Amino acid sequence: MASPAETAAMARAVELAARGTATALPNPVVGCVLLAPDGATVGEGWHERPGGPHAEVHALRAAGGRARGATAVVTLEPCAHTGRTGPCTEALLAAGVARVVVAVRDPWATAAGGAERLRAAGVDVEVGPGAAAAERVNAPWLLSVRLGRPYVTWKTAATLDGRSAAEDGTSRWITGEAARADVHRLRGEVDTVLAGVGTVLADDPQLTVRPAGGGAPGRPPLRVVADTHGRTPAGARVRDGAAPTWVATAREVATGPDGHLDPAALLAALHARGRVHVLLEGGPRLAGAFVREGLVDRVVAYVAPALLGSGAAALGDAGVRGIAGAHRLRLEDVARVGEDVRLTAVPLRPAPGHPRADGG
Amino acid sequence: MASPAETAAMARAVELAARGTATALPNPVVGCVLLAPDGATVGEGWHERPGGPHAEVHALRAAGGRARGATAVVTLEPCAHTGRTGPCTEALLAAGVARVVVAVRDPWATAAGGAERLRAAGVDVEVGPGAAAAERVNAPWLLSVRLGRPYVTWKTAATLDGRSAAEDGTSRWITGEAARADVHRLRGEVDTVLAGVGTVLADDPQLTVRPAGGGAPGRPPLRVVADTHGRTPAGARVRDGAAPTWVATAREVATGPDGHLDPAALLAALHARGRVHVLLEGGPRLAGAFVREGLVDRVVAYVAPALLGSGAAALGDAGVRGIAGAHRLRLEDVARVGEDVRLTAVPLRPAPGHPRADGG
Ligand SMILES: NC(=O)c1ccc[n+]([C@@H]2O[C@H](COP(=O)([O-])OP(=O)(O)OC[C@H]3O[C@@H](n4cnc5c(N)ncnc54)[C@H](OP(=O)(O)O)[C@@H]3O)[C@@H](O)[C@H]2O)c1
Ligand SMILES: NC(=O)c1ccc[n+]([C@@H]2O[C@H](COP(=O)([O-])OP(=O)(O)OC[C@H]3O[C@@H](n4cnc5c(N)ncnc54)[C@H](OP(=O)(O)O)[C@@H]3O)[C@@H](O)[C@H]2O)c1
Repeated sequence: MASPAETAAMARAVELAARGTATALPNPVVGCVLLAPDGATVGEGWHERPGGPHAEVHALRAAGGRARGATAVVTLEPCAHTGRTGPCTEALLAAGVARVVVAVRDPWATAAGGAERLRAAGVDVEVGPGAAAAERVNAPWLLSVRLGRPYVTWKTAATLDGRSAAEDGTSRWITGEAARADVHRLRGEVDTVLAGVGTVLADDPQLTVRPAGGGAPGRPPLRVVADTHGRTPAGARVRDGAAPTWVATAREVATGPDGHLDPAALLAALHARGRVHVLLEGGPRLAGAFVREGLVDRVVAYVAPALLGSGAAALGDAGVRGIAGAHRLRLEDVARVGEDVRLTAVPLRPAPGHPRADGG
Repeated sequence: MASPAETAAMARAVELAARGTATALPNPVVGCVLLAPDGATVGEGWHERPGGPHAEVHALRAAGGRARGATAVVTLEPCAHTGRTGPCTEALLAAGVARVVVAVRDPWATAAGGAERLRAAGVDVEVGPGAAAAERVNAPWLLSVRLGRPYVTWKTAATLDGRSAAEDGTSRWITGEAARADVHRLRGEVDTVLAGVGTVLADDPQLTVRPAGGGAPGRPPLRVVADTHGRTPAGARVRDGAAPTWVATAREVATGPDGHLDPAALLAALHARGRVHVLLEGGPRLAGAFVREGLVDRVVAYVAPALLGSGAAALGDAGVRGIAGAHRLRLEDVARVGEDVRLTAVPLRPAPGHPRADGG
């Protein structure tokens, strides 16, 4: 059983982990707190960027000699393999840590086995405390390892009556300045931005992260266009030099029965390229295909307090005929962003193949 | 200048006024706080129901002899006419009140003039403090007097992608239990519920207030069907004996250029019948007509975290072609209701004819 001090330390470790959200990809976010036997915090750390020290190493450095006999509280099982940095298990053992509390086991076979290695060396290991929050903060990375495909966040912006453009096709701007800045923050938290060729042809978006929006400096997200027949114009802004771009066509990605790129095949190709978190920016037809296939893991909907009464819907055909077949979600967050509202929701049923899909 | 004690008392008076929301119609909601010269509250009151004592009278009764020399803080100008009860101005004078702070002047010609009457009798009268909040709590009644038509609240329930029914027409239920109970609470706060004949034919709703939902006991809202050609079936549930019903047809209400009942004419007819607050429950076509004519004063949108991708939109044609013509609103409230979200918004531009429409 985790002590109250350990439970509080895990909440803190999740907070620390979250600091890596915009920079750790393609690595997991991880937070670590070291507690002395009297419960005092003697070290903290989080994983900031690929190639940089792991959370545990940061915390051990901060603690120095006070790590001896301490309890390490970590959001993710310490790795047992040598990658760009040495295994965290060995660092914890070398420092004389007596107990390790882990929220979530590492699903990545290469790095897994940390708990066993520590136990074999005589360390008291407990797995499970704080798992829900630690799963949430690390959801994209965990899903991508477990399912072998990137995590998909669908971003949409619509009026109160669910329109993403007016009848004449104009859509700039539906939401206000603050919501649009928030989209740039979102882009700064992913490694891939995806749009359908319909959106490219209609709006010619650049799909970059506005500098002030943060994100990993020098590592802008990959821009991907789902473009079965290669209709993206040579002069499209998405092809400028501001960030890498992949125009995905039927020559590289399999098509589905409807003749369009198969969403699962597109995600598999992105996974093969090391991509962990895709921000699907629409439009409605591409989003509909992803929702239909159960390939949307999170919805971030900006709702503008405006009414149009006609114009394109925010979401195209998603394979639903009757109300009983609706794709049901659970609200995770509701926030006012400037004059608009941002709703964040996740599927009520986890993605097929996800461990939690069986109620586990 | 209102003192800090008077400002606080006005906020309290607005709270008291709000208690009458479900019961005072067709009268205004009014709250009153009596302050002794030392700032202590010596009486409180609100207007509960038509024919019952006015807020000032309740507060004076509570204060008794301590009303002499006191300050009366009232959300609406005290009436100067004898209706079912005597004029409040005379009651305040008889009690020896020395000062009266009023938030909003009474726009109803018959009862107006209270401030002048009090001043003429030597009472110190200040008008204006707390006007914004006092306007808001009394918005339906104030608008109905100023514009000569009922205030219209449009209630809608839709998915995150703005659908109010699935492709096959099924719509029960889009929102959860708590949101549906909240709609009954809303119905308990109005004196009229309005639906188009399309909704009656599709869903056969009863449009009553569920008892637990509150509302004025024994005074259920009038049920109105906008039914140009009288297609409401004789056996429709809306015609049962649970509440009064008016099936409005072209025989009683003028039609517009599109051949349907003219929304303004329908509201004028309801005003003539003493109706102050209409809850427009849709469907999309009727709601579109009201939005187009600028006759929606408040939107209460229940958004369910679900995706449909097809099916009827929440709002039909509202006369908008391009994004610049969108009906823009201002969010007044965002609240989670069970698993859903309720957004409350009011037009950014007040209704045509409203005093504030000129920026006043
Ligand atoms: N408000 C917002 O959040 C937002 C965001 C984005 C776009 N929009 C609006 O959406 C409109 C464009 O909508 P849209 O639906 O035409 O654009 P879209 O979804 O961006 O693109 C649709 C196109 O993507 C291609 N595609 C590739 N694989 C697909 C698949 N599996 N399923 C479906 N399509 C696939 C298809 O063309 P091929 O198969 O022929 O290649 C299809 O025509 C614009 O008006 C834009 O302003 C709004
Ligand atoms: N989710 C929700 O909040 C919600 C609420 C209500 C309804 N609904 C759904 O909406 C669907 C019905 O939609 P609907 O649009 O057909 O129904 P509607 O708006 O309730 O009714 C439309 C009908 O009202 C009559 N009408 C009278 N005056 C009108 C005017 N000025 N403008 C427009 N119509 C006027 C018209 O018929 P005549 O002129 O011939 O009389 C018209 O066909 C149902 O599926 C129902 O489930 C959803």
